Amino acid sequence: MSVSFVILAAGQGTRMNSDLPKVLHKVAAAPLLHHAMCAGRALEPSRIVVVVGHGGQEVAKSALAFDEAAEIVIQEEQRGTGHAVAQAAPALATAEGEVIVLYGDTPFIRPETLQAMLEARSQHAVVVLGFTARDPGRYGRLIMEGDRLTRIVEWKDATENERSVTLCNSGVVCASARMLFELVSEISNANASGEYYLPDIVEIARRRGLSAGVVTCREEETLGVNTRAQLAEAEAQFQARARSEALENGVTLTAPETVFFAMDTVIGRDAIIGPYVHFGMGVTIESGAEVKAFCHLEGCHISRGADVGPFARLRPGAELAEHVHVGNFVEIKNTILDEGVKVGHLTYLGDAHVGEHTNIGAGTVTCNYDGVMKNRTEIGAHAFIGSDTMLVAPVSVGARAMTASGSVITYDVPPEALAFGRARQEVKPGLAVRILEKLRAIKAQKTGIN
Amino acid sequence: MSVSFVILAAGQGTRMNSDLPKVLHKVAAAPLLHHAMCAGRALEPSRIVVVVGHGGQEVAKSALAFDEAAEIVIQEEQRGTGHAVAQAAPALATAEGEVIVLYGDTPFIRPETLQAMLEARSQHAVVVLGFTARDPGRYGRLIMEGDRLTRIVEWKDATENERSVTLCNSGVVCASARMLFELVSEISNANASGEYYLPDIVEIARRRGLSAGVVTCREEETLGVNTRAQLAEAEAQFQARARSEALENGVTLTAPETVFFAMDTVIGRDAIIGPYVHFGMGVTIESGAEVKAFCHLEGCHISRGADVGPFARLRPGAELAEHVHVGNFVEIKNTILDEGVKVGHLTYLGDAHVGEHTNIGAGTVTCNYDGVMKNRTEIGAHAFIGSDTMLVAPVSVGARAMTASGSVITYDVPPEALAFGRARQEVKPGLAVRILEKLRAIKAQKTGIN
Amino acid sequence: MSVSFVILAAGQGTRMNSDLPKVLHKVAAAPLLHHAMCAGRALEPSRIVVVVGHGGQEVAKSALAFDEAAEIVIQEEQRGTGHAVAQAAPALATAEGEVIVLYGDTPFIRPETLQAMLEARSQHAVVVLGFTARDPGRYGRLIMEGDRLTRIVEWKDATENERSVTLCNSGVVCASARMLFELVSEISNANASGEYYLPDIVEIARRRGLSAGVVTCREEETLGVNTRAQLAEAEAQFQARARSEALENGVTLTAPETVFFAMDTVIGRDAIIGPYVHFGMGVTIESGAEVKAFCHLEGCHISRGADVGPFARLRPGAELAEHVHVGNFVEIKNTILDEGVKVGHLTYLGDAHVGEHTNIGAGTVTCNYDGVMKNRTEIGAHAFIGSDTMLVAPVSVGARAMTASGSVITYDVPPEALAFGRARQEVKPGLAVRILEKLRAIKAQKTGIN
Repeated sequence: MSVSFVILAAGQGTRMNSDLPKVLHKVAAAPLLHHAMCAGRALEPSRIVVVVGHGGQEVAKSALAFDEAAEIVIQEEQRGTGHAVAQAAPALATAEGEVIVLYGDTPFIRPETLQAMLEARSQHAVVVLGFTARDPGRYGRLIMEGDRLTRIVEWKDATENERSVTLCNSGVVCASARMLFELVSEISNANASGEYYLPDIVEIARRRGLSAGVVTCREEETLGVNTRAQLAEAEAQFQARARSEALENGVTLTAPETVFFAMDTVIGRDAIIGPYVHFGMGVTIESGAEVKAFCHLEGCHISRGADVGPFARLRPGAELAEHVHVGNFVEIKNTILDEGVKVGHLTYLGDAHVGEHTNIGAGTVTCNYDGVMKNRTEIGAHAFIGSDTMLVAPVSVGARAMTASGSVITYDVPPEALAFGRARQEVKPGLAVRILEKLRAIKAQKTGIN
Repeated sequence: MSVSFVILAAGQGTRMNSDLPKVLHKVAAAPLLHHAMCAGRALEPSRIVVVVGHGGQEVAKSALAFDEAAEIVIQEEQRGTGHAVAQAAPALATAEGEVIVLYGDTPFIRPETLQAMLEARSQHAVVVLGFTARDPGRYGRLIMEGDRLTRIVEWKDATENERSVTLCNSGVVCASARMLFELVSEISNANASGEYYLPDIVEIARRRGLSAGVVTCREEETLGVNTRAQLAEAEAQFQARARSEALENGVTLTAPETVFFAMDTVIGRDAIIGPYVHFGMGVTIESGAEVKAFCHLEGCHISRGADVGPFARLRPGAELAEHVHVGNFVEIKNTILDEGVKVGHLTYLGDAHVGEHTNIGAGTVTCNYDGVMKNRTEIGAHAFIGSDTMLVAPVSVGARAMTASGSVITYDVPPEALAFGRARQEVKPGLAVRILEKLRAIKAQKTGIN
Repeated sequence: MSVSFVILAAGQGTRMNSDLPKVLHKVAAAPLLHHAMCAGRALEPSRIVVVVGHGGQEVAKSALAFDEAAEIVIQEEQRGTGHAVAQAAPALATAEGEVIVLYGDTPFIRPETLQAMLEARSQHAVVVLGFTARDPGRYGRLIMEGDRLTRIVEWKDATENERSVTLCNSGVVCASARMLFELVSEISNANASGEYYLPDIVEIARRRGLSAGVVTCREEETLGVNTRAQLAEAEAQFQARARSEALENGVTLTAPETVFFAMDTVIGRDAIIGPYVHFGMGVTIESGAEVKAFCHLEGCHISRGADVGPFARLRPGAELAEHVHVGNFVEIKNTILDEGVKVGHLTYLGDAHVGEHTNIGAGTVTCNYDGVMKNRTEIGAHAFIGSDTMLVAPVSVGARAMTASGSVITYDVPPEALAFGRARQEVKPGLAVRILEKLRAIKAQKTGIN
């Protein structure tokens, strides 16, 4: 069954108190919008249409960054959810198959839930996603007759009786493309706020003698973000679930409550993650790897038997092969470390490749930026880079070569060679004491104190 | 209306199990005493008198550090709160206007609450701050007749009926200076513990036919600190409020529960603060700046568009202009970074000034301490400091100048010049392998293993 | 009274979803097994027998690492707790004195509780440790007649009446060695699962006319770990207790909920521990020392008046004498710092000894590894190590000596001497600008953009 998505992402989000469009605020290191798109993508949709408005350009750019096949339509004025969906009509009204309407500020709907809505379409012309609210408050209520949905009533229009209903409207709907846009075209804005409400399609469908039905999900899935406090709550909810899933999958989390996962973090069984580890997007960690406390990881891969940290930062393009050791105060960016490489302390490796079993001394820096361009460093296998070696890229060090500590390497070192670039040590007997005396005299003169 | 404060800060705080006087223990990076003084200061008082006793010298020093106009009086013996207030009589008994008595171990009374007490003075000769306790326990009870306070009764002296009262005494009182010290002078110590209790002034006032009244506040404001567990609770309470205020003000906190604010932290709208950020005193961050995870900030300013961290430490006197980038494992102390400066990795800048758009390479150090004095480093605009440059202060690098990586700069570099101080690289073919063989032979000899 | 322990540590722990044997998963930086052994050790037992099965070799190794006098017996097949205890019979059946059976996955039984069980032996032939469960669920129930235990009934075999009992079985039992193994030898496996259940010894004892009794403890002590979620819960429980004990002992914890203690962490009164501090095993901190935020400590000692961090890592063998200062991005391993040493920034000291009041400049590295061996560095008192000094070990720097910043020190520096090993600074006027122009030209050529 072919399915397309319309994702409403035009709202201003005034209550966020932010210049950033609401759907671009992040949960789990990804914009809210990407969470909604990700849920949709799991169903392998034929098309994804994102309706943008406030901050349209930024939102469109973000949508395309997630999925370059997304289609952007613009809602010039914010005239209600019905109006927003109608903007997708030119793109989808003649499409085959189903359409599901999602919301850019509702990140947690599960693919399984969307699948259930699609399946329920065999029973009903329109399928609405509902949930039983612990505290229904001012949610719209789903008014049922048996298993048929007769009406969605806004809280402010609801009778006392209707308000006692706890089955609430998530806003997510599913119908055939043709039917959806037909119904939407009949929504009227003859109401107090002059807006076109998407939920009205249920009553329009019923008037036509069509059946509407409800699929329900857990209230957590329908969490919508309108304030920064709700954003923080969404983050907390995501993390709680991610932590508990990691534990169930056999990941060792010393202190689960201190680990922050990204939307797409993947960690193997029996990997060990210490306290205070922060994952950005794009991290994969194999079984049996260890990440110690206080690490910051993004866009990197850590293989079986490798260990990282504490106090390590892996940036995008850091690829650690098996049994690599990355220690403290080390930054790795766009660099491949082959099997068994050791980078223990106070090092920056950027735009580099290090061959297997090479040892990188403390204080090593790949000088990859010359003020204009970024340049690459190539280090062979079984090499020994002495402490405080500056590798002025572009440069290479051959296999089994050594650099003397404190050397600045400006041209290529052949395999098995020793490279050094440092002055010979000299010693001046007694000079330390004389220098100190002189400095003290200067200070005394300056401060008038002896 | 002129107001003065008496702040009681003489208690030993035995239950803190500490050599540090209780009021000097910190919440939100500031001594409890400063919180109380800060609440008072918001009313622009004419005088602030701090009554010290245990650890008097230390407490006095801290009080004066917060407000050099504070007056210190010494309570030689701890003979009760009435006795403590009486010590302020020589300083204030003939003062004009109002006096409010505060407590150095009660950090969270809001200025608005104190203002309300001042206003209530038009109705009553004595105004007491009360609160409705969720669990009144052993607090003193406020016994009312209509809107008049007739008596403050200690729990141990209260009848069953009085104990059922939930309106409790915070200890904070307000009266005219003259009246306060008159009433205080009549307090008797004819009680079981032989102490002079400040709350007795209510009954003394009533006997004189004077009216006493109550202003109430939320119980949270009256939190007093007597144990380290309560101190931790006060910290948690402060942080919860600060985090929620930051969110309301439009600050993006990825994980609010992991950010620790100081008493005076100021952050602009749409600034982004990552997880695990710690604020010391004196930090201001402009709108649109970003502080990534694992940062430690104190006494610094971060301008719009600047980004800091992860793993950065800004110390007092760090001033980051717009669009400055400070990366990982970087420490900045008493240093001004002009617009667009980049300090990406593993660097220490202290006592320095860096001109706009200058790039500081990884591993750079301002050698600001010569063993006797601290010296300054001056770097011009659009300069390029190569990786691992040692800037031996006092020294300057001119605009558009460069230093070669690995250089030790001991005298000034003119604008547009290239400075270098490093040996030429040499390469010894095959020597790496021979060295390794020799080292292995030595090891084998030492360990008896080949 | 002589006591021996049998610790059952043979279980597979299938629900952990791990290749690591369950009892080797860690809480508070120590394997669960060590917690159980530690509780036992407090009673100065004559013998400790650990029954291993799944992952037996690893478990045995860990047991011996904790206590080299532990005796290991192997349970080849997992045939129930009774069968597991029986494996210890050859080792203990003829031993004098008492035996207590503990569990390797039950880390929190207190020594005081075990002591109480020993004392209760004067009343009863068999003593069982029980607890009143808040939610008894499927725990075995202790069926009492007065103060005598008549039977331990499994939940699945219990009557409705028996299930209403809230006194539950912890599994821990105490008896004389001789009696225990006699009773155990009579346990039958004639039950649904064909296993030998240790609790059956109660009924066996009663049939012999022997008295069984119960000692109770708090439910928290009996926490057993079967899943990773329970492991995380055990960690949380341990930390909550450790934090609260530290506060009671007069330690200042700015944010107790962010500090992770190890099983054996010892901290003196009025020491200050900032937020986000992580303790591995073997750390002792004296009164009045300070550890700032974001520190990672293991196997180290910090003396009175010393301060560490933020962002410091102390590794095993780091010994900080009084008033030592270790600053940010500093790693110390197997190194003694004498009184008043300062190591402020971006430094790695490994396998070294630094004399009193010596100052170590930023970027200093002890090059302790030559690719084959670890070598030592010796630095005298009152020395001044310039920034970015490479100390190529084995090497020594004498008292009151100096090294110039940027020097590579390859042979010993006598006392009071100045050592330097760096090229003289040269300046090429205008060259910076010409280099930049050339780089830009190259880039333009490469990218086709000017």
